[in-house]
Amino acid sequence: MAEKGVKVFGMWASPMVIRVEWALRLKGVVYEYVDEDLASKSDALLRRNPVTKKVPVLVHDGKPIVESTIIVEYIDEAWKDGYPIMPADPHDRAQARFWARFADDKCNAAIYPVFTATGKAQREVVREAQRCLKTLETALEGKKFFGGDAIGYLDVVVGWYAYWLPVIEEVSGASIVTDEELPLMKAWFDRFLAVDVVKDTLPPRDKLLALNMARRAQLLSA
Amino acid sequence: MAEKGVKVFGMWASPMVIRVEWALRLKGVVYEYVDEDLASKSDALLRRNPVTKKVPVLVHDGKPIVESTIIVEYIDEAWKDGYPIMPADPHDRAQARFWARFADDKCNAAIYPVFTATGKAQREVVREAQRCLKTLETALEGKKFFGGDAIGYLDVVVGWYAYWLPVIEEVSGASIVTDEELPLMKAWFDRFLAVDVVKDTLPPRDKLLALNMARRAQLLSA
Repeated sequence: MAEKGVKVFGMWASPMVIRVEWALRLKGVVYEYVDEDLASKSDALLRRNPVTKKVPVLVHDGKPIVESTIIVEYIDEAWKDGYPIMPADPHDRAQARFWARFADDKCNAAIYPVFTATGKAQREVVREAQRCLKTLETALEGKKFFGGDAIGYLDVVVGWYAYWLPVIEEVSGASIVTDEELPLMKAWFDRFLAVDVVKDTLPPRDKLLALNMARRAQLLSA
Repeated sequence: MAEKGVKVFGMWASPMVIRVEWALRLKGVVYEYVDEDLASKSDALLRRNPVTKKVPVLVHDGKPIVESTIIVEYIDEAWKDGYPIMPADPHDRAQARFWARFADDKCNAAIYPVFTATGKAQREVVREAQRCLKTLETALEGKKFFGGDAIGYLDVVVGWYAYWLPVIEEVSGASIVTDEELPLMKAWFDRFLAVDVVKDTLPPRDKLLALNMARRAQLLSA
């Protein structure tokens, strides 16, 4: 399949956009990256995603694909002879999709409140986030990566935790993923961030920290 | 693949469970159906879905699979030589997954409030539900079914609208899917309900109506 015209509309600090970049790089697909100002989205983005108007949007052979997890599955199917992102076995695929959905629907919703909570309320939301991640962590038992011996779909989907959660912890002063509470997840953070494709795609930590510091201050003063 | 041991844990009035039954019947898979009392779930169900504890659960070769849309994809992959549920083309697959997600996340959330709203508030939520379905309806343009000439993944996922929405309309006294507002959707309702596999699997309308009447009365008096 022609790689000509592969384009990603993204935003450099978005943990949803990086899933798409990781998937493309795992496949060795060369792509053009367009950074969007989310406060003033381009006509090019809005024309390609008129329904949700969100990033990421992947454009391949002139056709837009939206929603990060759907894009990752698309990439695996469109470049099917490359690096295998989804597991081969139907039951393993269903499990990976289930945990990805669980992380996005339950754990992300449990993590976001940590960002702006303080004091006693923060301790409560931290415990809730830990409970959710603890459940997700069961999918790592006996394995190096969620995908087994190498990273796969679920690693790509939840991989942002490894880089963004420590930033959220630093910004909010909370500890979520600790050796005591989430040992398998913590060890996976290190292993995941050491993968070449992963570490070569990360945004600069100081810039990400500054942006999230500013966002938190803004939300707390609102 | 052996069909021995295919079991569905469901609840007869659930629009999420019927997706799984439609998918199995499209594939011609014989299965055992276990109806759950959701107020007192069986140990067999809880053991197979300890994370979300919800129906439907499919058990195949002793392994449980949960979440209705994930189960439908699993069925298509596990019985891959049978009736094709997912489109073959990667872009078409991504589109079908996108609209399924859109329907579940946006339209279902817009439809549920109609169930208990009354008066002016009801007119407002009905308009919101119609706006969402109007967007979904664009996926039907120029086609007999969402899947094209025959029903496919998206028909299976949103198919419950065809049978359950008229019940919600009757129970609440609201009109949502009308010839004026949603002509393509309305015509698809009739075509979809005429498909043998679909109509042979529907719960009795009088029983569904009575259950939903009782539920609404209970919610309104709470």
